[in-house]
Amino acid sequence: MSDNLVISIDAMGGDKSPRVVIEGLALAAKKHPDAKFLLFGDETQVSAILKEYPELSAVCKLRHSPEVVHNDDKPSAVIRNRNTSMYMAINAVKQGEAQAIVSAGNTGALMAISKLTLKTIQKIHRPAIVSIMPHRTGRYVMLDLGANTECDALNLAEFALMGNILAKHALNITRPRVALLNIGAEEMKGKEEIHQAVKIIKNSHLDIDFIGYIEPHEIPEGKADVIVTDGFTGNIALKSIEGTAKLMVRLIKDAVKKSFLAKLGLPFMLGVGLNIKKTMDPRLYNGAMFVGLNGLSVKSHGGTDALGYSVAVGNAINLVRQNFVSTIRDELETVDLDELSQEILYDAY
Amino acid sequence: MSDNLVISIDAMGGDKSPRVVIEGLALAAKKHPDAKFLLFGDETQVSAILKEYPELSAVCKLRHSPEVVHNDDKPSAVIRNRNTSMYMAINAVKQGEAQAIVSAGNTGALMAISKLTLKTIQKIHRPAIVSIMPHRTGRYVMLDLGANTECDALNLAEFALMGNILAKHALNITRPRVALLNIGAEEMKGKEEIHQAVKIIKNSHLDIDFIGYIEPHEIPEGKADVIVTDGFTGNIALKSIEGTAKLMVRLIKDAVKKSFLAKLGLPFMLGVGLNIKKTMDPRLYNGAMFVGLNGLSVKSHGGTDALGYSVAVGNAINLVRQNFVSTIRDELETVDLDELSQEILYDAY
Repeated sequence: MSDNLVISIDAMGGDKSPRVVIEGLALAAKKHPDAKFLLFGDETQVSAILKEYPELSAVCKLRHSPEVVHNDDKPSAVIRNRNTSMYMAINAVKQGEAQAIVSAGNTGALMAISKLTLKTIQKIHRPAIVSIMPHRTGRYVMLDLGANTECDALNLAEFALMGNILAKHALNITRPRVALLNIGAEEMKGKEEIHQAVKIIKNSHLDIDFIGYIEPHEIPEGKADVIVTDGFTGNIALKSIEGTAKLMVRLIKDAVKKSFLAKLGLPFMLGVGLNIKKTMDPRLYNGAMFVGLNGLSVKSHGGTDALGYSVAVGNAINLVRQNFVSTIRDELETVDLDELSQEILYDAY
Repeated sequence: MSDNLVISIDAMGGDKSPRVVIEGLALAAKKHPDAKFLLFGDETQVSAILKEYPELSAVCKLRHSPEVVHNDDKPSAVIRNRNTSMYMAINAVKQGEAQAIVSAGNTGALMAISKLTLKTIQKIHRPAIVSIMPHRTGRYVMLDLGANTECDALNLAEFALMGNILAKHALNITRPRVALLNIGAEEMKGKEEIHQAVKIIKNSHLDIDFIGYIEPHEIPEGKADVIVTDGFTGNIALKSIEGTAKLMVRLIKDAVKKSFLAKLGLPFMLGVGLNIKKTMDPRLYNGAMFVGLNGLSVKSHGGTDALGYSVAVGNAINLVRQNFVSTIRDELETVDLDELSQEILYDAY
């Protein structure tokens, strides 16, 4: 296995590429000495920086790509351009040269090209975007975070299945608690597709510890390990959480600035600040994973630094090491969610 | 006007009723000496507590109601029971004896009975739940927060109209900036009904400063004064914001507990803590308003204290004083949103 662990890298994606990408890879390579990297990007630029990192260079192969996907490019405009570093990096996974691809570039383009090139796993209808996030005492995964604005019950059930496997592999939880995001705990609260998804999950005999609905304010308490929702709602929840965390930090900073006494007290609070930072630092949760494809696509934040980028690469390495994609395929062998959902939908009429 | 300012009170709603209700009214009466209160509740219980507040008693009338709506009552089970304090308090608004009703009881029942009794304003299709919330430098209103799980474009446009008037009256903003909550800034991001709502609002010639889409993480920055969304999304955003704010406070407390040094520094930080509390204290934002009805219904948190309850009552008094309900009616006289939405929807096919 370890001979084989190759991660494909879009070296040109991200705000400060290729420098931050390579600095991040250098950190990742130290932590995962068995991983190899296949880089796609401007040969002159990338090799100049690579030279500064001889240990990393030893586990890298670089291939020239003449073009770059920009952040303001529409996915439809770049999806068939085979000369971009993003396309070439994804294609390396399709060709079996690598098992996962990491990019800090344009999210929409990365999803569009990944879908077109890697194709969705048979029996999965829609790939999803997943992130690992912090709660009070640990971590959870949430999906979908924006790949699918509208989802039906079957999509949600498939997300539950994939999220369950992801939590086992990425969070090392033997039996993850899986919940559907909703606006109330009562059975009839929320939308019809959520109620139908409950039926599909319960009737599927999937080996999932399904705990029912969860409301957003219960997430930080650590009530569930996998939060399942449609891409619109997930994106709203994610950005509300991020925005509020930032607001709180800002309010504290503003208040400290205004108070002479608080400034005096700052040295005492250093440990507290570091502790919160260690829990909430967005770099430690970098790397949204596109799941449901034949191959893993990982999206790093465009503005992250080397540490953040190395976390995204680490996510990719861990999931590849644990055969994440084939585990999903195996579980789908044992159950036909599609047929099940048809039965349940007919039942409703 | 001031002779006439009467607020109807469901004295039995809420976790610690009627005591907290009456303590809250005593605070509100001090702040708003021109307001009168019409209370509905158990005569023996309520009058016993009222006696402790002679100044409040002078501006209160108490009417006996033999029954109470409980928190676990289904709205459908209590909606036609005319003997509950909630029903009788709402009915007083219908009868013209009061201009608004405040309850800390069962939200679903309050909305159901308010709709049935007060009726929706002509030309408004769906009433909405609105709250006032804090951002970094001020306050904003957001609607709908849960009355309507699914909304069409016309509903959203009506929420924009009502939210605009509410922000003028409740936040004293001359020209509120109104935005639609979405998952991206680009025109085609998000759901079809959101795109259609933009067209209706823009073509309506309503006097609204419509600034387009807002993403949840931009809300705390104070980018808009009115945030418009469907009830499912609004509820998800609201609870995500509340949950994260609580998590942050909790993380800080946990970290301080673990650190001897931080405990020493606590006295220096007292001012900072008070400052944050002053900005984020949920009691100061208590009182969700049901708008779009012929009369105003205000829902206090069931678990709030006297200060929180007095804020909810204050919201009701302010909006009544400014003729909130008739302003909505007047603005609707000048525009037929319904007809406009028909045109735009035909246009789309």
